[in-house]
Amino acid sequence: MIERVNIIGAGNVATHLLSKLSHTCKISSIFSRDFTKAAALAQKVKGVPIDNLKAIDLHADLTIIAVKDDAIVEVLSQLPKSLPIVHTSGSRGVEVMQAFANYGILYPLQTFSKNRPLEIGEIPFFIEASSSVFLEKIERFCKTHLSENVSYSDSHKRSVIHLAAVFASNFTNHLLTEAQCILDTENIPLSVLEPLMLETIQKAFALGPKITQTGPAARSDQKVIDKQIATLKEDDLKSIYELISKRIAASVKSNA
Amino acid sequence: MIERVNIIGAGNVATHLLSKLSHTCKISSIFSRDFTKAAALAQKVKGVPIDNLKAIDLHADLTIIAVKDDAIVEVLSQLPKSLPIVHTSGSRGVEVMQAFANYGILYPLQTFSKNRPLEIGEIPFFIEASSSVFLEKIERFCKTHLSENVSYSDSHKRSVIHLAAVFASNFTNHLLTEAQCILDTENIPLSVLEPLMLETIQKAFALGPKITQTGPAARSDQKVIDKQIATLKEDDLKSIYELISKRIAASVKSNA
Repeated sequence: MIERVNIIGAGNVATHLLSKLSHTCKISSIFSRDFTKAAALAQKVKGVPIDNLKAIDLHADLTIIAVKDDAIVEVLSQLPKSLPIVHTSGSRGVEVMQAFANYGILYPLQTFSKNRPLEIGEIPFFIEASSSVFLEKIERFCKTHLSENVSYSDSHKRSVIHLAAVFASNFTNHLLTEAQCILDTENIPLSVLEPLMLETIQKAFALGPKITQTGPAARSDQKVIDKQIATLKEDDLKSIYELISKRIAASVKSNA
Repeated sequence: MIERVNIIGAGNVATHLLSKLSHTCKISSIFSRDFTKAAALAQKVKGVPIDNLKAIDLHADLTIIAVKDDAIVEVLSQLPKSLPIVHTSGSRGVEVMQAFANYGILYPLQTFSKNRPLEIGEIPFFIEASSSVFLEKIERFCKTHLSENVSYSDSHKRSVIHLAAVFASNFTNHLLTEAQCILDTENIPLSVLEPLMLETIQKAFALGPKITQTGPAARSDQKVIDKQIATLKEDDLKSIYELISKRIAASVKSNA
């Protein structure tokens, strides 16, 4: 049973996981290269802040690595190979941890920002492990302390989910940034788009995005398409408009 | 006072507006080239179905044109110029109606699908008119019978809002279609992305999309970016990924 947890990282994911775990788990070492960050987190969840991985609690039942993808390998190289570990990345495979006795993945499919509360219990987690025994341990740990929405996913499937999430979430967020820049030219607040966006998302999940596609490209309204492209000032933005419109038209056609 | 309304069109917008208006207005002529469509709508809202514009009720206080953008001009050419009219398009200007005595715009910023209920009262409407007297009439009509969320917007401002809506709503819906195609390769249901998407949208509106940007491009994780582009099979999709990622990186940099 996993009851005592170390966490490596003090960023968005680490902060959210810790705040949920601290209700039902014993939090032990909290590592950040920036000691003040580790200390701030440790104070909230009654853990032990460290800025040197040599000081990590070797008796923890699980060490969760929640650092930037680029930093995972360096962190791993400094940890004793006897520590049971998981990382939380969507795009890094399990193979980076193979020197360890017990290792796995605990990938939460969500976008995390520190100062924004989240219902961790509603997040889908995808897990993978070095053995079926360790997989079962991680599954039970996740269900008990984080979220009941847990599925097994190998590294390839997880990379597919992560790619889909980049298109759906990261790129959509950026489209809202583009929309804001467009609205800024007339001092129109982004909030005018809020009812539209909520309905867009809810409708797409209720009915399926292929059949809910609307707009000039979906109805092949070339006049509007040409007019809108002409008002865009930057070439990259014109290209994004053209490429997505082309794919919308093809998708609507294939759906008809 | 506007109390008696004709509607031209039997599509998504016409259907939703009628179902709300019929509670408090007298619905008169309902036009569709397809008489069975007009008749089906008319039965629901106690209007008079017509498939010939010559039969339109000349004593209605307002005639709402809710047809495809491309069909607006043709419809206008067949209507008596004494009829007070508005169209509901985001991208067509007022000038197409200038032969009429009283004309204007009543643009609802929302995505409409026939079989999906909508809270019309929460939709932002943007209005414009040929005179201040007629503008006031439309404003009062909208507030009384449709939504209190009404703002004046000239045709340029409306075209800016419409362009932003295309990026935010139409393009986002398409990104969900792309995400679904990606997930389909591993038989993963689109629903795994639902908590992520709702949080993405709510967070972007709460904090602003520029500062809520996350993902590989936002943290300049070139390894993941290259790996993900390599897994995409279609050139247009690769280009969309590259272009949006480039703009995300630039936006995050300018924000730092």
